Amino acid sequence: MPHIALPDAPGILAGMMFRPETAKPLNDLAEVLLRGDSTLTRGERETIAAYVSQLNSCNFCHNSHATFAALQLDGGWDLVDQVMADPDTAPISPKLRALLAIAALVQQSGRAVTPESVDAARAEGATDVEVHDTVLIAAAFCMFNRYVDGLGTLAPPTREDYAPMGQQIVEFGYAAATPPIPD
Amino acid sequence: MPHIALPDAPGILAGMMFRPETAKPLNDLAEVLLRGDSTLTRGERETIAAYVSQLNSCNFCHNSHATFAALQLDGGWDLVDQVMADPDTAPISPKLRALLAIAALVQQSGRAVTPESVDAARAEGATDVEVHDTVLIAAAFCMFNRYVDGLGTLAPPTREDYAPMGQQIVEFGYAAATPPIPD
Repeated sequence: MPHIALPDAPGILAGMMFRPETAKPLNDLAEVLLRGDSTLTRGERETIAAYVSQLNSCNFCHNSHATFAALQLDGGWDLVDQVMADPDTAPISPKLRALLAIAALVQQSGRAVTPESVDAARAEGATDVEVHDTVLIAAAFCMFNRYVDGLGTLAPPTREDYAPMGQQIVEFGYAAATPPIPD
Repeated sequence: MPHIALPDAPGILAGMMFRPETAKPLNDLAEVLLRGDSTLTRGERETIAAYVSQLNSCNFCHNSHATFAALQLDGGWDLVDQVMADPDTAPISPKLRALLAIAALVQQSGRAVTPESVDAARAEGATDVEVHDTVLIAAAFCMFNRYVDGLGTLAPPTREDYAPMGQQIVEFGYAAATPPIPD
């Protein structure tokens, strides 16, 4: 049960409907990080978001972004499930594997990121912008996950529950999800 | 030393100069959360930001927001130092003390926030919007702190180093700090 009187909506949608003023920059951040111009595909970026959300045990964000990843990766749910079970053995590029390792360090603490972890990503072809964006995606989901669970929002229980939202996000993006801001 | 080739600027300023596209929503979020319309004073909100940054051991963010708090609280640095040493004994309102306790739980995990911690804040007069904003400020600094340290940015060592930036933020705000976005 939510800790405050929120609108009847799941996960972050309830917080965003409650406070559209903060929803706008949150959605703008997700839009540029996860869907804006990048040499990382949208599927790869959603995979990083889903993975960090899993490490933070945030069911709503994990299911949401795993859905968005599955819809945008060639490997679909089968690949997403393998990455979430073990990124080290999943059939992903060595570059994405190294970026996921950086994301896992960021999830612990910004101070946990080492020069060696960044060098390892660079050795697999990661650019400085890709490292930057991976750090910020991982950091941002340490925010989104805490926001969603810190308000005690509700998470629909099954993967299928997230499919309609997935279609909306893939088609229209995050910025379109911001509720109108009252005058 | 920064993990990637960043512009020569301290802390988050380096990340923001490197990637103005993500700087914009980050600054917009800080602006609405820390300086927008609220029944919490700007000094109270900066105190929450500084406290969470201290819990995350992020020197740049801690010194920055402690400076911004000291400039905007009647008690100045003397009060900020007391809060950072021990919020339970510092001479702050019972409501702010209860909100800082919620922020400390969010710093651990969104799932650490309990109905009892929210009830305690409500008993001291906190509104639902104040609880919401406290959760989101704490969550946001779990992002900002990880972003700043995950890139290995540089933190000027002394409190005095942060004073000029403090004057800028207090006068012009966060949104004004966004670098121009290239075409």
